[in-house]
Amino acid sequence: MNLILLQPEDWANDTHACLHDPRRLHHLREVHRAAPGDCLTVGALDGLIGRGELLSLTDTEAQFRVTLDREPPAPLPVHLLLALPRPRMLARTLEHVSALGVKRVTLMHTRRVEKSYWQSPELKPEKIRQHLLLGLEQARDTRLPEIAFETRFKPFAEDRLPAMLANQRGLLAHPGLAQACPRGISDATLLAIGPEGGFVDYEVEKFLELGFEGIHLGERILRVETAVTALLSRLF
Amino acid sequence: MNLILLQPEDWANDTHACLHDPRRLHHLREVHRAAPGDCLTVGALDGLIGRGELLSLTDTEAQFRVTLDREPPAPLPVHLLLALPRPRMLARTLEHVSALGVKRVTLMHTRRVEKSYWQSPELKPEKIRQHLLLGLEQARDTRLPEIAFETRFKPFAEDRLPAMLANQRGLLAHPGLAQACPRGISDATLLAIGPEGGFVDYEVEKFLELGFEGIHLGERILRVETAVTALLSRLF
Repeated sequence: MNLILLQPEDWANDTHACLHDPRRLHHLREVHRAAPGDCLTVGALDGLIGRGELLSLTDTEAQFRVTLDREPPAPLPVHLLLALPRPRMLARTLEHVSALGVKRVTLMHTRRVEKSYWQSPELKPEKIRQHLLLGLEQARDTRLPEIAFETRFKPFAEDRLPAMLANQRGLLAHPGLAQACPRGISDATLLAIGPEGGFVDYEVEKFLELGFEGIHLGERILRVETAVTALLSRLF
Repeated sequence: MNLILLQPEDWANDTHACLHDPRRLHHLREVHRAAPGDCLTVGALDGLIGRGELLSLTDTEAQFRVTLDREPPAPLPVHLLLALPRPRMLARTLEHVSALGVKRVTLMHTRRVEKSYWQSPELKPEKIRQHLLLGLEQARDTRLPEIAFETRFKPFAEDRLPAMLANQRGLLAHPGLAQACPRGISDATLLAIGPEGGFVDYEVEKFLELGFEGIHLGERILRVETAVTALLSRLF
């Protein structure tokens, strides 16, 4: 927790915040070993970043005087289209992408996504939100990513994907495709990443037909969570 | 398991291998749904890669006819100096770096490494080896990384680090340092990455004095496992 992310319910008034949740109180006491007078980095959810002076800390409450004065880090210019990973990998991947600065994620079904993954409790909005918040707290960011779901590949690819691709550079990451992953781009990008086991040929063809460029990260086949971080870090 | 990594005890003779361990037999049956006649990617530990034709598969044994004919993927030209992460993160990080092609890792003590981490069962040679093997199987590589330990920072930094740095480019990754992480380098590199909470000032100064270049990944503070993958992917 490198930033205390203040949600609407944490504000006592315009300049003071009170935390009551056990997770953050525990972290303040046990990791930060915070004491009244300490200044910590705080941010308002979807707003500015600044400093919070700890006024009091008890077992049930932490009070801060808050001054917000700067923008959070710039987001990555990317919309991530990610085949739904298995639940534990989804949890970690959401935290990574939130920390790395992705602001739009569409979790999509593809042939090699197990149907049971769509029933996982990890897809409940409050679970997803919790992972995204952890990523923001880690990276000192405030802007919550938006997560969308596409549970059927064909209607998604045929009816909605062409409009999403308008005015964006589409990149399809898949082992064996023609082009090495570009480095240091700043284009608005729609980045598609497959499931464990990869996209099937039909899906690859569909993306390429729509105008996606096929890219690869070399001979090595990476786990989805490793590939997502590696692709984002190399691209932007 | 994108490659079946044959260890010395798996070979029946020069051209045939027999697996007996439950983990890989389970994977062959349940994930690959392999049947006699199937051809799978195999590799010899620290050797070549090729094809294995499955001759038989029972609950206790899988027999392959093996043809090895090509080199594994090129390693990254990097020696990673990593402050010992907490045990669960160590396990995942070893798997990531093995999959990404790192062949030398030194796990070192720094001020903000909790001393108890050095007592973790995750540091037992057989546990470390298991994580590294999983990374190789994932990435279709065969060459096992070497792992070394430096349990005291000062004697390491003063007595051994200068010689390690000879003929290599030293890079120290730490938030707030001067230079943005370079992209697409091919230099032989000694890359130092700190613990959760970072290096302390004394440690940063020590590295810089020795000739390390200080680099950063931007404003965002990443978890160690995310930072390791992000740095390796951007650098090489």
